[in-house]
Amino acid sequence: MQILVSIAPLVAIVGLGVAFMLYKDVVKQSPGTERMQEIAEMIHQGAMAFLKREYLILAAFVGVVFVLLYIFIAPKTAVAFIIGAICSMAAGYIGMMGATKANVRTSAAANQSGQDAALQIAFSGGSIMGLTVASLGLLGISVFFMIYVMFFGVENVSYLAGFAMGASLIALFARVGGGIYTKSADVGSDLVGKVEAGIPEDDPRNPGVIADNVGDCVGDTAGLGADIYESYVGSVIATITIGAAMGSSSMAYMTLPIIVIMIGLISSIIGIASMKLMKGFDPASVLRYTSFVAAAIMLALSLVAVAGLGLGIGVWGALTLGCLAGIGIGLLTEYYTGMFGPVKKLAATTSTGAATLIISGFALALESVAPTVITIAIATYFANAFAGLYGIGLAAVGMLATVGITMSVDAYGPIADNAGGISEMSGLGPETRKITDGLDAIGNTTAAIGKGFAIGSAAMTALALFSAYTQAVGLESINLVNATVVIGLFIGGAITFSIAAMTMTSVGKAAMMMVEEIRRQFREIEGLMEGKAKPDPATCVDIATKASLKEMILPGVTAVLAPLVVGTLLGAEGLGGMLAGATVCGVMLALLMANGGGAWDNAKKYIEEGHHGGKGSDAHKAAVIGDTVGDPFKDTSGPAMNILIKLMSIISLVIAPLLIV
Amino acid sequence: MQILVSIAPLVAIVGLGVAFMLYKDVVKQSPGTERMQEIAEMIHQGAMAFLKREYLILAAFVGVVFVLLYIFIAPKTAVAFIIGAICSMAAGYIGMMGATKANVRTSAAANQSGQDAALQIAFSGGSIMGLTVASLGLLGISVFFMIYVMFFGVENVSYLAGFAMGASLIALFARVGGGIYTKSADVGSDLVGKVEAGIPEDDPRNPGVIADNVGDCVGDTAGLGADIYESYVGSVIATITIGAAMGSSSMAYMTLPIIVIMIGLISSIIGIASMKLMKGFDPASVLRYTSFVAAAIMLALSLVAVAGLGLGIGVWGALTLGCLAGIGIGLLTEYYTGMFGPVKKLAATTSTGAATLIISGFALALESVAPTVITIAIATYFANAFAGLYGIGLAAVGMLATVGITMSVDAYGPIADNAGGISEMSGLGPETRKITDGLDAIGNTTAAIGKGFAIGSAAMTALALFSAYTQAVGLESINLVNATVVIGLFIGGAITFSIAAMTMTSVGKAAMMMVEEIRRQFREIEGLMEGKAKPDPATCVDIATKASLKEMILPGVTAVLAPLVVGTLLGAEGLGGMLAGATVCGVMLALLMANGGGAWDNAKKYIEEGHHGGKGSDAHKAAVIGDTVGDPFKDTSGPAMNILIKLMSIISLVIAPLLIV
Repeated sequence: MQILVSIAPLVAIVGLGVAFMLYKDVVKQSPGTERMQEIAEMIHQGAMAFLKREYLILAAFVGVVFVLLYIFIAPKTAVAFIIGAICSMAAGYIGMMGATKANVRTSAAANQSGQDAALQIAFSGGSIMGLTVASLGLLGISVFFMIYVMFFGVENVSYLAGFAMGASLIALFARVGGGIYTKSADVGSDLVGKVEAGIPEDDPRNPGVIADNVGDCVGDTAGLGADIYESYVGSVIATITIGAAMGSSSMAYMTLPIIVIMIGLISSIIGIASMKLMKGFDPASVLRYTSFVAAAIMLALSLVAVAGLGLGIGVWGALTLGCLAGIGIGLLTEYYTGMFGPVKKLAATTSTGAATLIISGFALALESVAPTVITIAIATYFANAFAGLYGIGLAAVGMLATVGITMSVDAYGPIADNAGGISEMSGLGPETRKITDGLDAIGNTTAAIGKGFAIGSAAMTALALFSAYTQAVGLESINLVNATVVIGLFIGGAITFSIAAMTMTSVGKAAMMMVEEIRRQFREIEGLMEGKAKPDPATCVDIATKASLKEMILPGVTAVLAPLVVGTLLGAEGLGGMLAGATVCGVMLALLMANGGGAWDNAKKYIEEGHHGGKGSDAHKAAVIGDTVGDPFKDTSGPAMNILIKLMSIISLVIAPLLIV
Repeated sequence: MQILVSIAPLVAIVGLGVAFMLYKDVVKQSPGTERMQEIAEMIHQGAMAFLKREYLILAAFVGVVFVLLYIFIAPKTAVAFIIGAICSMAAGYIGMMGATKANVRTSAAANQSGQDAALQIAFSGGSIMGLTVASLGLLGISVFFMIYVMFFGVENVSYLAGFAMGASLIALFARVGGGIYTKSADVGSDLVGKVEAGIPEDDPRNPGVIADNVGDCVGDTAGLGADIYESYVGSVIATITIGAAMGSSSMAYMTLPIIVIMIGLISSIIGIASMKLMKGFDPASVLRYTSFVAAAIMLALSLVAVAGLGLGIGVWGALTLGCLAGIGIGLLTEYYTGMFGPVKKLAATTSTGAATLIISGFALALESVAPTVITIAIATYFANAFAGLYGIGLAAVGMLATVGITMSVDAYGPIADNAGGISEMSGLGPETRKITDGLDAIGNTTAAIGKGFAIGSAAMTALALFSAYTQAVGLESINLVNATVVIGLFIGGAITFSIAAMTMTSVGKAAMMMVEEIRRQFREIEGLMEGKAKPDPATCVDIATKASLKEMILPGVTAVLAPLVVGTLLGAEGLGGMLAGATVCGVMLALLMANGGGAWDNAKKYIEEGHHGGKGSDAHKAAVIGDTVGDPFKDTSGPAMNILIKLMSIISLVIAPLLIV
């Protein structure tokens, strides 16, 4: 059964092939009118220009870290690191290519062929990202596993962590940079466009609108993709590392997670294919069923794999638990941020103004933390009861194994959002707009669920990495009775708050620059407001790009240095405390911010549907304030937490050889 | 030197005597015009009625817990518990008597004799609370120590925890109930009065104004007093408990904290007396210097005590460190929430509306967490290096030893605030109002510092109690490598978020009831707006009382049950993890909320001073939204965290006999 690992690279290449076919298929579709193509080209160019400049900065950073790892840790770690980083960047690039081709074609299909066709294209666009993430992760892990562990011997397993660190480092910058980009563009263009000038969202006269749409791509597609990719890679490598210490059957324990994600990729391809059979169904259900189909196939085949490897049923139990917890967390997120009781009650608080909306939304966000955390705690408890620390790692793998499909659904969202923007800007009329609005609304729900899922999987991955770290440094105990550990705990918690502060401040700064540029264009370009002259969106794109790339440096460097500094000052045990503190506080802050932001967003949408006075009412004005407050919560600072806790854990795992007690 | 403990009760009685003299002195002063007396009487009656009804509910609750402790833990614990609870209630009652007598006399003195006289009365009123808290704490601890430890033997030391638990239980309800009261009244009367009806703050036509002033007393005086009293008692008893295990010189280690707080009480009395020598100084400096005088005397005399007891200089170092950390935390709080750079920059963000103000304020609050936490971490690190776990306990004691004076300064704030309200309501003219405004402004700063200090001391106390707990249950290790501990950590963190959510939701609910009642009165009482008819403030007081008492039950009971449930399910080690998680997350949330609320409050005040357009401008409207959002942050949910973490720790310590491993 272990021999299956050697076919994993082939499966990964098949996955990439399917992604390429989907890409060809998307590109073949009609790109719409000339105006649509022009707008789409601007978004495409903006997104690609951002990625290129981001990757240029990251290349320098990756180069420096490569040299440090090569000298201070091990050449094998450094090599795995650089390939991990390159795979992450490649996944982001390919996913973005797919998304920026699919957006305009979704819009065109909505105009020419109706909802089914539009949904197919948007989902195919998302699947390019989903399959690329899953395939590149599987390819990298399986190849490095074969070379390092199967060829050089199991004592080389620790070098694998380099691959996860490469993924993690890229993810942090992609998430933070993308998050700052998307929200500075969004907040900036809304503040001037909607609030000051009183023109609608996505109005072509607003010079910030292209930047806003680029932001959806770089934040929600590339940022989220890098985040999930990192969890995926991190959880598998953490589980392999823990499995390496399982004595005589360690090879079976180490190969299982690789076989599981290989099965997961196959299941995802089947799930994506099953889409075609569900024509005419309601789009939200289609997206949901395909995910369930893939999860069920993955679990069934994994049971065979577990049995074939001669491992206990408890191991499969842990895997299943993780998969179920992922679904549970998604549903909880949907409950708190979707159009259900909590959000409807929240919308009602606008009757006494913005202050009560903010207070109630914050209370709702605080309230949403415990149920998710308890779901994670229960999954962790039983996974551990079933299969020890290995079980915790495998639960994380179970949550992420069908990433090929979950990521496809997530990446569908910004494509639908973009399609709506393009339809509006190119004046495709209310019928088309209705279809794209419908697809976009589903995208908002899947985005909220995706965020919850990203947090849940980040928490499980961080716990798995934490376990791998304690094993790697040879700690029998990280003892909370020691003052050093308690101090580490406090410092870890404080770091999450600081990074959240930095990213939120950055959005404010970058948004201010956007505001000034948009105001300037409204003031200086004659005839712009009357629709006689065109705005200059390229300047706005340029400002958002520069500002976000500049602002991502400080939080990124802080996150990288923190484990090094704390490890040096407080030792391996104190660093363990720091990781625990950061994980606990990071998960809670991430949930607080994601759910608060999501709830405010949908409270506004609920009012826009005509409740409490509808658009233009005082309630709506209050709701716009809530939505704006929620923007950096849910799309910048909250998501940054996910990566922060994983990145600090993975760096600790990589520097473990320097800290061995 | 140990014999000094036996004079501690006498010192405590002297302290109470001084408090009584101050009370007599305050009551002797002119209570002003008939109108003033009438208003003051309403506030007094409202506050006392609230306290009585609160104590009635608490009596039932205390009775039940007493029986449970008597049966399941030990009769000695139960007795200490009930006396601890009674002392806390007595301190609250006496302090409130003092405050509600001093407020109107401060107003009268400002009108008749000027700033110096007004400051003296307000500070004397605060000192009644300060000295009562310090004296009753010292009295109870020293008497129980003599009976339980000196008379029955050192093995009885664990029963002392009952006394701290009594203090803690009352504190939770006082803080939560008072916090909900004060903010529902404040938010409710502001929303209708200032925003809807457009009448100024403290306008006599607003039926909610009396309730608002009562709220200042029950929240800021009684609530804060119970909070600090609990830290004071908890830190000393935790340190005694740790000291009991110090082998042959354990008696010296156990008596030191008692002697230190006795010295602290003497120093506080000297500090209060030194006030009289500083006539003509700027009031803010006077309040600051008296605190420094007391701290310096306390540290100097403590050095003698440490030497006399034959303990190492490291012990004194830990004590000093705690004292300095307390001052440091106060200064950090002042920096982030006072009229300095951060708040001024925050005020500027109102130029783009409420949303950017909320985002920036939240970012500021997030940013403020790390410096304070790092101060606590440094103090903990060195206190531990100097004197082990005992050092951590003693650092907390050092922070709190001069509670007689720090609490006096804190309790001064709401008296000055009330005096301003009474001056406004009884139309004392702009000259008087200017003096009371000045005193109130200082009160706002001392309140912010007091909040920071309360959080810092709660954190140190919780750490000390945590150490005492691990000792009491006989745990050598609380191992973060065990999944149970990690799960405990997550659950502990989640509890703090849940309690914050509950208290914030409660404020919203209670405020809505107030809004409806005030609207009803404006609508139904003819001639009210024209000043021809009087409002009915008693109904508002009644609504706030009932609502806050009802709403305090759920969070209170949750906090009490959590350690029992988690201890039963996860065992002693898992409960240890829970305490750590709650302490870390609780401290961070408390800082976030206190500093965020304080900064928004002062940003509004800064604009009201005439910046960015001053009162009535768009910037001011945005600032009012920020201030309203900050109200439950800083005065309800934030402060609840302090007690929550202490209460859960002390309950764990008390139930330790049931969990011994």
